[in-house]
Amino acid sequence: MDALEAIFTRRSVRKFTNKPIEEEKLRQILEAAMSGPSCVNARDWAFVVVTEKEKLRQMAQANGRPAQPLKEAAAGILVCGDLQRAFGPAPEYWVIDGAIAAQNICLSAQAMGIGSVWLGTWPQMDRVENQRRLFDLPETVTPHSIIALGYPAGESAAPRESRYEEDRVHWEKW
Amino acid sequence: MDALEAIFTRRSVRKFTNKPIEEEKLRQILEAAMSGPSCVNARDWAFVVVTEKEKLRQMAQANGRPAQPLKEAAAGILVCGDLQRAFGPAPEYWVIDGAIAAQNICLSAQAMGIGSVWLGTWPQMDRVENQRRLFDLPETVTPHSIIALGYPAGESAAPRESRYEEDRVHWEKW
Repeated sequence: MDALEAIFTRRSVRKFTNKPIEEEKLRQILEAAMSGPSCVNARDWAFVVVTEKEKLRQMAQANGRPAQPLKEAAAGILVCGDLQRAFGPAPEYWVIDGAIAAQNICLSAQAMGIGSVWLGTWPQMDRVENQRRLFDLPETVTPHSIIALGYPAGESAAPRESRYEEDRVHWEKW
Repeated sequence: MDALEAIFTRRSVRKFTNKPIEEEKLRQILEAAMSGPSCVNARDWAFVVVTEKEKLRQMAQANGRPAQPLKEAAAGILVCGDLQRAFGPAPEYWVIDGAIAAQNICLSAQAMGIGSVWLGTWPQMDRVENQRRLFDLPETVTPHSIIALGYPAGESAAPRESRYEEDRVHWEKW
């Protein structure tokens, strides 16, 4: 799929078929996650990939009501920040680096016909702590976001419809 | 350009030709920025697009040594968070939403043969305040990142080379 088409047509998918995601495709999605820029190339992230139904159910429970689509997803990727690798003088860049990785997950999935929905974890600290406990994460690893993935039951792409808003753009000056 | 190719081959470009970026392409890049997901669809961002040489020089000065490529760029986009639109219960999601927009800028540019380099601003508060002052931004608008853009002097895409690291991936459990 063309890159601009993937960017412009990608929409959140919350209903999935039972079809599993091929391991080769999951690996491509993870490679995409690891192919974005990161602050001083710190690559300060880690990923937990879950396909087991019971674990997906537990992840959903631990992440609040909007995370319910995860129960029917083929896979859930918990994107984490690895604070040991973060840029010392300004470690909060881990939040940006995790978001870049997660967006690459969504777009690469879209390019392969796989639907996704981004489930926010950080900065909602109850969710962060719940996921940390569920996966028994090291102290230096912080849950960032969960991306639920699966083949879409229905349309995977929205019609091409501009989401450009003129009043958000300031030319040369505010 | 294929979406996976754009994701896998995109690299930071810091040397640019003198060729300006066509306005139509800048608008497509901005549309891409506005086409990513955001927390509860808050769309809590705003963009300042700069093409004037003197202003680009000032932006570079205000953003530390790594921002010097901006001086030779055809355009710089200051991605900002619009805190008035942010999700009330957890406004810090603006950081993630801004990163998604900025990554879409980088990838859509790549897809059109335009090089980019991501220049970190937030969370380095001296840079944040410098950009805020330079553009006289409203109190509720916070500088996030600058993306420098231009036609690359040299290669725009790196060879396809896997950046997958097995030890960053945890299957089913940590």
